[in-house]
Amino acid sequence: MTKKVLVINPVATDEWNETDKDYLKKVVSKDTVLELVNIEKGPTSIESFYDENFAVPGILQIIKEKKDLFDGIMINCFADPGIYAAREICDIPIAGPGESALMTATLLGHKFSIVSVKKNVIPMFEMKVKVLGLSKRLASVEFIDTSVSDLEKDKDKTVNRIVEAAKKAVQDKHAEVVILGCTGMLSLYKEVKGKINVPVIEPAAAAIKLLEKVIELNLSHSRAGLYAYPLLDKIKGY
Amino acid sequence: MTKKVLVINPVATDEWNETDKDYLKKVVSKDTVLELVNIEKGPTSIESFYDENFAVPGILQIIKEKKDLFDGIMINCFADPGIYAAREICDIPIAGPGESALMTATLLGHKFSIVSVKKNVIPMFEMKVKVLGLSKRLASVEFIDTSVSDLEKDKDKTVNRIVEAAKKAVQDKHAEVVILGCTGMLSLYKEVKGKINVPVIEPAAAAIKLLEKVIELNLSHSRAGLYAYPLLDKIKGY
Amino acid sequence: MTKKVLVINPVATDEWNETDKDYLKKVVSKDTVLELVNIEKGPTSIESFYDENFAVPGILQIIKEKKDLFDGIMINCFADPGIYAAREICDIPIAGPGESALMTATLLGHKFSIVSVKKNVIPMFEMKVKVLGLSKRLASVEFIDTSVSDLEKDKDKTVNRIVEAAKKAVQDKHAEVVILGCTGMLSLYKEVKGKINVPVIEPAAAAIKLLEKVIELNLSHSRAGLYAYPLLDKIKGY
Amino acid sequence: MTKKVLVINPVATDEWNETDKDYLKKVVSKDTVLELVNIEKGPTSIESFYDENFAVPGILQIIKEKKDLFDGIMINCFADPGIYAAREICDIPIAGPGESALMTATLLGHKFSIVSVKKNVIPMFEMKVKVLGLSKRLASVEFIDTSVSDLEKDKDKTVNRIVEAAKKAVQDKHAEVVILGCTGMLSLYKEVKGKINVPVIEPAAAAIKLLEKVIELNLSHSRAGLYAYPLLDKIKGY
Amino acid sequence: MTKKVLVINPVATDEWNETDKDYLKKVVSKDTVLELVNIEKGPTSIESFYDENFAVPGILQIIKEKKDLFDGIMINCFADPGIYAAREICDIPIAGPGESALMTATLLGHKFSIVSVKKNVIPMFEMKVKVLGLSKRLASVEFIDTSVSDLEKDKDKTVNRIVEAAKKAVQDKHAEVVILGCTGMLSLYKEVKGKINVPVIEPAAAAIKLLEKVIELNLSHSRAGLYAYPLLDKIKGY
Amino acid sequence: MTKKVLVINPVATDEWNETDKDYLKKVVSKDTVLELVNIEKGPTSIESFYDENFAVPGILQIIKEKKDLFDGIMINCFADPGIYAAREICDIPIAGPGESALMTATLLGHKFSIVSVKKNVIPMFEMKVKVLGLSKRLASVEFIDTSVSDLEKDKDKTVNRIVEAAKKAVQDKHAEVVILGCTGMLSLYKEVKGKINVPVIEPAAAAIKLLEKVIELNLSHSRAGLYAYPLLDKIKGY
Repeated sequence: MTKKVLVINPVATDEWNETDKDYLKKVVSKDTVLELVNIEKGPTSIESFYDENFAVPGILQIIKEKKDLFDGIMINCFADPGIYAAREICDIPIAGPGESALMTATLLGHKFSIVSVKKNVIPMFEMKVKVLGLSKRLASVEFIDTSVSDLEKDKDKTVNRIVEAAKKAVQDKHAEVVILGCTGMLSLYKEVKGKINVPVIEPAAAAIKLLEKVIELNLSHSRAGLYAYPLLDKIKGY
Repeated sequence: MTKKVLVINPVATDEWNETDKDYLKKVVSKDTVLELVNIEKGPTSIESFYDENFAVPGILQIIKEKKDLFDGIMINCFADPGIYAAREICDIPIAGPGESALMTATLLGHKFSIVSVKKNVIPMFEMKVKVLGLSKRLASVEFIDTSVSDLEKDKDKTVNRIVEAAKKAVQDKHAEVVILGCTGMLSLYKEVKGKINVPVIEPAAAAIKLLEKVIELNLSHSRAGLYAYPLLDKIKGY
Repeated sequence: MTKKVLVINPVATDEWNETDKDYLKKVVSKDTVLELVNIEKGPTSIESFYDENFAVPGILQIIKEKKDLFDGIMINCFADPGIYAAREICDIPIAGPGESALMTATLLGHKFSIVSVKKNVIPMFEMKVKVLGLSKRLASVEFIDTSVSDLEKDKDKTVNRIVEAAKKAVQDKHAEVVILGCTGMLSLYKEVKGKINVPVIEPAAAAIKLLEKVIELNLSHSRAGLYAYPLLDKIKGY
Repeated sequence: MTKKVLVINPVATDEWNETDKDYLKKVVSKDTVLELVNIEKGPTSIESFYDENFAVPGILQIIKEKKDLFDGIMINCFADPGIYAAREICDIPIAGPGESALMTATLLGHKFSIVSVKKNVIPMFEMKVKVLGLSKRLASVEFIDTSVSDLEKDKDKTVNRIVEAAKKAVQDKHAEVVILGCTGMLSLYKEVKGKINVPVIEPAAAAIKLLEKVIELNLSHSRAGLYAYPLLDKIKGY
Repeated sequence: MTKKVLVINPVATDEWNETDKDYLKKVVSKDTVLELVNIEKGPTSIESFYDENFAVPGILQIIKEKKDLFDGIMINCFADPGIYAAREICDIPIAGPGESALMTATLLGHKFSIVSVKKNVIPMFEMKVKVLGLSKRLASVEFIDTSVSDLEKDKDKTVNRIVEAAKKAVQDKHAEVVILGCTGMLSLYKEVKGKINVPVIEPAAAAIKLLEKVIELNLSHSRAGLYAYPLLDKIKGY
Repeated sequence: MTKKVLVINPVATDEWNETDKDYLKKVVSKDTVLELVNIEKGPTSIESFYDENFAVPGILQIIKEKKDLFDGIMINCFADPGIYAAREICDIPIAGPGESALMTATLLGHKFSIVSVKKNVIPMFEMKVKVLGLSKRLASVEFIDTSVSDLEKDKDKTVNRIVEAAKKAVQDKHAEVVILGCTGMLSLYKEVKGKINVPVIEPAAAAIKLLEKVIELNLSHSRAGLYAYPLLDKIKGY
C-alpha cells in the first residue's frame, strides 16, 4: 500500500532537512513516499513555549496548502507543536514524535524516562505526559544542559551526556525504557543506543512508523470531540 | 498602591473593547489603571485550537512591546492563550481567566462545573483542568451549543441556556460552584448570577482581581523551571 | 524487511483459526509471514479470570517451543493473557490486542470506550486500563450481554448491539473512539465500522500492526525491570 | 470598598496578636479594617492534630458571636483549623492561610514545596494537599525540625534552616515556588525571601489578600454541598 | 487472647448506648471485653463538620483518662471523629468505622458505594475516601435524605430508602459492595442486608472486628510520621 | 465460632508446609481449624509472572475439590496468585497475603513500603498496588537482592538486609509502616520486627486474621461485577 507522507520541520531553517530526510528514509517502508519541508517563518529551533507558539502558524499554513496531497503528516519535533490544531483542520492522520514515542514506550516496559536538552524540559514534559494521561508510567525527565543548536557541535560529548543521564534514570528512577526527548538527537541515536542496555526510542522514527500503521489500518482521528472542525475564515492578517 | 494593568483581548477585532473595559473598570480597585488593547492579526474569536494558535503571536508581540509600562497583564480569554510563553518573556505577573477562575472556585466549594460554548469545550477544558492538576475538583464541563459570536444575539436565550446547563451540573453532577467558561459571557454575568443559587464565577473579573492581589503581594512567576528565559532573537519573519 | 510473526489463539479449539488467519493476512504488510496456532489445553473461550488462568500455561509452552523461529508474537485475545510472562521468557516483542488497541486509541481522540461481551468486563477492563496507567483516557466500558461463543450466532443482532452500545458511549460518556473489546468480534468489524461515525479500533489488527512497527524499529521490551529473566527449570509437572 | 475583616489567632495566648496585626496591616488595602482576636481556650500553638482539635471549638464560638459584624474572616494558621465548620455556620467568606497559599502557588510555577516545622508536617501537609486535589503540583514538604515556639528564639538560625530546606526543595525536588508552612514564620518572611531566588509565599498575607478579592468579587462559599447549614442547637455543654 | 476494648459514642447522649452495646456484643469474639461510654459535652449526633468539631475534645478527654485500661479503642461514628489525634495520644490501636468499612470493602469487590443520611455526605465522604487514597475504588456516595435522629422513627421507611439507594448504586454506578455510611444505621443492618444481593458492610462491626485483628496481631499505629507524640500540656482551659 | 480454613501453598513442594503451619497455628484464634496443602504441579517458588502463571491452575484445582469443606481459603503467597479466579469459582471468602497486608498497613500509618526479594519486585508490586487503587499510600518498594530459595540460607544476613532496606524506606521515603513482601520471610518476622521501630506487617498472618474476621462478619466477595460465576466446563485437558 503506497503511502504519501509529509514531514514538517517546524523550524525556519532548512539546516536539518537533508539529514532528517536521509534518516527517515531508512526508517520508512519501501512503499512510503516521503516529502520533507520546513516552515518559512518562526524559530530556528524549539526550546521554549515562546518558540513553539511562533512555529505553529507556519505549520498550519503548510498543512492547509498541502493536506490533500498526502496520506498522513508528521510534525518533526518532540514538543508536537500544533498537533491539536492540525487535527482540527485535516482528516488525514497527524503524528507527533512526542506522543508517538511515549505510547511506544508503554509497550516496552513499566516506566520510561525522557532525556532532553535544557532544565525547563522537566516541567514541560511532565506537563505533556500529564496531558496524555500517562504520568503513572513516567519515571523521570532528565536533561543534559545542552541547547538544541549545540547538540551536534561536539557529538561525543553530547552522546556521553545522554548516556550518563539515561543510566542515572535507569539506576535511580527505575526507568526501563529511555526516550530521546528531542528530534534533534536523531543523528546520535545509533551511537546512544549502543551504549545503553535498555530500549532507547528515537521519537521521529517512532512517529513515522506509527503513522504508517495508522494509515494502513485506515484510521484517523475522531471528529466527535477534541478535534472538531474549526471555522477557517475567522483568521485575519495571516 | 497604584497598579497599571494591561488587558489584551486576543482577537483581531475591537468589537468587545469598550464593553470589556467598562465591565472590568467596575471590577478593579480604585488605584488600578487599566489599559485594554486587542491583537491586530489573528482570529475574531477563539473557539478551537486553530483559533488559539493564530492568536498567540499577536499577543506575544504586544507583550514584548508594552511589558515595561505595566505592573501586570491579563490575557482576556478563558483558554488562557499564550500564557506560558507570556510568562517566559516577562517578569511581571500574567493572569489568565481560565486559571484564575478555576483556582478561585476551589475556595468556594468541593466541586465546580464549567459552562461554555460548543461541544468541543468538553475535552478541551477537561484537558485544561488536568494540566492544572485540578481534575479531582471538576464536576463537569457543560456546553450551551452557541458560538461565541452568537452569545449576545439573543441574550435572553443565551442566559436561559447557561442557567439550564448550570442547574443540570448542580443537580446531576453535584457541582457546588459554576464557572462561566468564556469571557465573552461577561456581559451576561449579572443576569445569570441572579438565577442560579450557587456561586457563579466570571473569569475575567476573577483574573483581574487575582492579578491585583499578586501584584500587591509583590509576587510574580518563578524562573526556576517552567518559565525559563527564552532566546528572543531566534524568531524569523515576525 | 521480512518479518515472521506467530499468532497464538489462546483457546483449546481450532474453530477460529481460519477466519482469524484470513482476516490478519489482509491486515499485515506484504513482507510479513504469518503463522497461527491455538493452544491444546485450556478454555474454549476466555471470558473470566478462570478461563484466562487455564489458558496461560499452554500459551507459554508454545512460546518456549517456537520463539526462536519468529520475529514477534501476538497473543490473540483482548485480555492479553500471559503477556507479562511471555515477555519474561523471550527477547522478541510480544503484542497484545488489549494493550495495542488502547495505546492506538490515545492517538485518535481524547477519550475512548471499550465495547465487550458480558457485564463482568466492566470491572475487568477498568482494572486493565488502570494497570496500563490510562484511566484518564477511558470514557467507559460497555457490554452487549452476549457471550463469546454466541457472537456469531446472529451476526446482525450482535452488530446492532455493538453499534447501540458504541453510540451510547459516544453520546452519554463523550467517547471519541470506540474499541472492540474482544478479538472474537473481528469478523464483525467491517460492518460495525460502517455504522458508527467515530473511529473504531479492532484490537487484533491494531496489535499485529504495532508488532510489525516495533519489529521494524528493531525494538523489544526492556529487561531492566518488569520483564526480568525467570528461572525456567523451577516448574514441575508441566 | 470598605471591607471589615476579622482575623482569628487560633491559640489561647495573645502573644502574637500585636506582631501579626502589624504585619497584616501592612499587607491589606487601605480600605480594609482589621480586627484580630485570639481564642480563650485551647492550645498555645498548633503542631499536632491534638492541638488543632482543641483549638476549633474556640474558633467557632468567636465566629458565631462576631460573624455579623464582618465581611470576611481569616483563621490565622497554616493548618486551616475549623475552616469547613466555619463555612457551615456563616455566609461571609472564610479564608485559610494553607488553602490560600497553595492556590496562589499554582499561579506562579509548575510545582511548589512547603517548608514547615517538625517532621510530622510531611504526612500532614501531603494529606492536606491531597484533600485539596493539588497533589500533582506538590514537589515536596520539607521540615526544619524547630517547634513553633522556638521559631523566633534564634531568628538567624531559623532563617538559615528555612533557606536551606527551600534550596534543597528547589534543587532536588524541582520546586519552583516555596510556601512557608506555618504562619508563625511571618516575622521571618522578609529575610527569607531575600535569600531564595524563587517566589516565596507567606500564607497569612496570601490569605488576607485572597479574602479581600473574594469579598470585592461579591462571592462566598457554596451552600449546595460541602458547606450545608448545620443545626446549631444540638451542641450540649459548650 | 483476652482483649479489652473501649467503644466511645461521640455524642452527648446515652440514648444509643444500650442498643449499640447489645449489637456489638454479638459481633465480638468471646474473649473480648467491651465497655461503651458516650461523651459528656458535644453534639447529640454528628451530621456536619460543626458537630464533629464539637465532639472531638470530649472524645480525646475520655481517651486520655482511660487509655491505660484497654487494649484498643473504637470511636463509634462513620466520620471517624478525632481518630488522628487519638492515635497521637495513645499507643494502643484506634479503630474508626469509616476507615475500617472502606478497607474491608476493598477486599470484597472492585468498587463500593456508601449510603448515608443527608446530601452533604456526598462531598464529605468523597473527601474522606480521597484522604484515604481510595477514590479509585469508590463507585458513589448516595444519600437517603433522612437525618440521624429520624433514622429509627419509621424503620420500614428508612430501610426502604437505604435499599433503594443501594440498588441504584449497584445498577447505575456499578457498585459491587454497599457500605452503610452511618453507625446509626446498625439497628437496621440485618433487615437491609436481607434485601440487597451484594455484600453490605455495617461499619461499627467492621471496625470492632478489625480492631480485634490488629490487637491479636500485636500491631498498632506507627509513630514515625503522621502520628507523632504531641505535647499534651499546651492546652489551656479544658 | 468454629472456622475451618484452608491454606494453599502455591508451590510444588512440601518444603515449607510444616514451618508455615506451625507459624500460622500460633496466629489464628483458638476456634480456627487449619489445613495446609501445597500444589502438585507448578513452580517451586514464585518470583516471576512465569512462576505465577504455572502455579495458578494447581491452586484452582485444589479449590474446586475442597471448597465445600471450608469456611475460607488463604493462598499463601504475597503475589496473591489466582485470587480473582478463586473468587469466581467459590462463594467462601478468599484471602491473599498481598491484599491483606496492604489494607492492614493503611490503618497504621500514612505511607507504607514493601520489602521484597529481587529487583523485578519494584515494578511488579507498584503495579499490584496500582490495581488495588492504593498508589497514594505507597512510599516505595525495596528489594534485598536475595531469591526466595536463599532467604533462609543465612538467616542473619537476610534479616540484616531486610532491616537495612526497611530503615532506608523509613528514612528516605518517609515510610511509616513496613510490609514484608514475601511470605517466605515469615520465619524471619520476629527477628526483623525487633530491629525496626515502625510497625512491620507479616502478610500471611495479616491474611489469615483478616480472613477470620471476614468469616466472623458473615461476609464474602460480591458476585455483582468482577467476580461473576464462570462457566466451569469450558476447560479442556486439565
